[in-house]
Amino acid sequence: MQPVYLDNNATSRTDPAVVEAMLPCFTECFGNPSSGYAFGSAAAAAVRSARKRVQALVGAAHDHEIVFTSGGTESDNTAILSALNVMAGRDEVVVSAVEHPAVLTLCRHLESDRGVKVRIIPVDGRGRLDVDAFQAVLSARTAIVSLMWANNETGVIFPVAELAEMTRTVGALFHTDAVQAVGRLPVDLKETGIDMLSLSAHKLHGPKGVGALYVRRGTPFAPSILGGRQERARRAGTENVPGIVGLGKAAECAMDTVSAEGPRIARLRDRLEQGLQQRIDGTHVNGDTTARLPNTCNIAFEGVESDALVALLDRAGIACSSGSACTSGSTEPSHVLKAMAVPPQFLRGAVRFSLSRDTGEADIARVLAVMPEIVGRLRKPMPSQPFNQPSGLVHA
Amino acid sequence: MQPVYLDNNATSRTDPAVVEAMLPCFTECFGNPSSGYAFGSAAAAAVRSARKRVQALVGAAHDHEIVFTSGGTESDNTAILSALNVMAGRDEVVVSAVEHPAVLTLCRHLESDRGVKVRIIPVDGRGRLDVDAFQAVLSARTAIVSLMWANNETGVIFPVAELAEMTRTVGALFHTDAVQAVGRLPVDLKETGIDMLSLSAHKLHGPKGVGALYVRRGTPFAPSILGGRQERARRAGTENVPGIVGLGKAAECAMDTVSAEGPRIARLRDRLEQGLQQRIDGTHVNGDTTARLPNTCNIAFEGVESDALVALLDRAGIACSSGSACTSGSTEPSHVLKAMAVPPQFLRGAVRFSLSRDTGEADIARVLAVMPEIVGRLRKPMPSQPFNQPSGLVHA
Ligand SMILES: Cc1ncc(COP(=O)(O)O)c(C=O)c1O
Ligand SMILES: Cc1ncc(COP(=O)(O)O)c(C=O)c1O
Repeated sequence: MQPVYLDNNATSRTDPAVVEAMLPCFTECFGNPSSGYAFGSAAAAAVRSARKRVQALVGAAHDHEIVFTSGGTESDNTAILSALNVMAGRDEVVVSAVEHPAVLTLCRHLESDRGVKVRIIPVDGRGRLDVDAFQAVLSARTAIVSLMWANNETGVIFPVAELAEMTRTVGALFHTDAVQAVGRLPVDLKETGIDMLSLSAHKLHGPKGVGALYVRRGTPFAPSILGGRQERARRAGTENVPGIVGLGKAAECAMDTVSAEGPRIARLRDRLEQGLQQRIDGTHVNGDTTARLPNTCNIAFEGVESDALVALLDRAGIACSSGSACTSGSTEPSHVLKAMAVPPQFLRGAVRFSLSRDTGEADIARVLAVMPEIVGRLRKPMPSQPFNQPSGLVHA
Repeated sequence: MQPVYLDNNATSRTDPAVVEAMLPCFTECFGNPSSGYAFGSAAAAAVRSARKRVQALVGAAHDHEIVFTSGGTESDNTAILSALNVMAGRDEVVVSAVEHPAVLTLCRHLESDRGVKVRIIPVDGRGRLDVDAFQAVLSARTAIVSLMWANNETGVIFPVAELAEMTRTVGALFHTDAVQAVGRLPVDLKETGIDMLSLSAHKLHGPKGVGALYVRRGTPFAPSILGGRQERARRAGTENVPGIVGLGKAAECAMDTVSAEGPRIARLRDRLEQGLQQRIDGTHVNGDTTARLPNTCNIAFEGVESDALVALLDRAGIACSSGSACTSGSTEPSHVLKAMAVPPQFLRGAVRFSLSRDTGEADIARVLAVMPEIVGRLRKPMPSQPFNQPSGLVHA
């Protein structure tokens, strides 16, 4: 039986058309784009065309506003570090409590090691930003606001265009981690006051290890990685030509599919969510369901440990996740659900299903077919023989 | 006619076997290695096996001493920044005048923006480090010494094992940029006092956009990119699984070929070098020819502009380089040759030919066949009609 992959917020399958586009960059058009001669120019042209495709996907006004990086984490780190360098006299960073570790871990480090003041804005029980608290902390000391476009665990969407406008009033920079939004929601940066935006190819059926940072023209900027003058001296290092070309192709495919696929995926997600609620008692959907990514369902099952649930689903050939991939392996419950003050019985039993354009009706039917039995089994009192869990998957 | 590619120090063709090894990571084994379930475990296993292959190539004692990065530049930056963070009370960095921009640009920035003292050690006319000057600057204030294993422009090899021993006497960390050495020279880190080493896959027939930083067990370390706990919390961001697997395969291929291919490539390089010297007057080989990479020949032609020479060779289907790829496009002569005090007539006419295991006899024969005519043409006084140069390739 084909496995059912419902963990697209962790990473998505690279589109075969993307792989196809990358292949010539390895063995044919393999030159260094920074070299002047013919070999290099073909690679440089491929990078140029990829840049235009990413520009189009996010609605940037200029192609040189796209800086290629090694992924979402590097983009997030770079945006925040850059702002602290260039915004003279401003030493505060404003983030939400539900940002990705690529933002929060960096911020904690900046606070303890560099004396940066980090203002963490709370969210409500449905994961929505406390906008009053946000406005209250904005000041002439704010260097940068970094708020995610869509949350990786719940799919909840922040009103980033409005938040960017509010940020402008105090003269700070606005960055958004749009790693989960780009390719899933229409994005048109031209129409917003967003100064910087992070995206990562592998969340939109592109390759791992490549991403981009959008830097609006005129935004003061300090690079994080220094060396050669690649990317207009904003990101040093030999360009990852195959990766960049793959991201470009992924952007093109996403442009073609985002408006048609979004609603289809949302219908499948809703069928999954409603189906689970109908078939199983004691469920709870985490996160606002009105402003949410079309592909994400975070649902908790009372009296169940999410790691055990994920492990049993795995054995049944279904991939989903408890918490985000970069923190799984830890026994800590999700910082996102904790920030939402999700009641304890739901906190520990939360599972994330994240769909993609690869997801079909049959995948949803499979999950609905196996879940009641699995949840029922986990809810039964433990037998006297310890239940034989696959090692390394279930945590204390 | 097949083009002749002699710019392998800029970047090398990805080995088809490497591409083959990467392919399943895109569309089959595409999971997130940090996820606990089956999809993720296959990817995690692929990363583990790649780590062991890189470990073997550099002779590291432990596989966890290998930290995967996005390439040589990130590795170099990370090593230096880490040392400045962890070596309390030490605020000096020691480098040579011929380091790659990935080291020198960062150092200039650290000096101007962070008050770090950078000690730049000169080289002699053959590109060899002034070891007396080096020993004279080492002190209890030295946080890190960063000296390259082999120079990208001349191929000159520094005695890094000895330099690392000298560094130990003052308690500083020793980092080597071995981007041009790994895969071309036998490397056995266990036997040295080297604390950190940078390598980049695309210089050894691996993919662009991936590299590694070797960090000896017990070496204090502070990560540059913060977020999830990937790479034992030493480098955050979803692992570039295809890139890492590609680097692993490239390492394996290099292990198999380095001892046999090194001498063969050196013979071809020597034939090229001697052949050019025999056929053309007024040549000068830049850099020490006794301790040199087997694949590199930096040779100058009196009365010729290297950019013009590279452009004409390009038209003849031969790729080589003037200066390093990341600084070409600029009109500045190479900082490496300047540091060597190469006489002006040779400085401006220097061309780098860099071979690889893809290079054959026929490639060398082609270069030897066309060079005398091309150099002769460039040495003729300019005709009254301006010579029609391909646009963008020849600089003022
Ligand atoms: C919201 C968000 N931000 C940032 C990242 C980091 O991206 P990457 O893994 O490409 O570094 C992720 C995914 O891991 C994410 O979901
Ligand atoms: C000696 C040396 N160090 C560092 C680098 C940087 O490596 P990368 O381009 O993979 O970032 C290069 C090549 O560009 C190099 O030749």
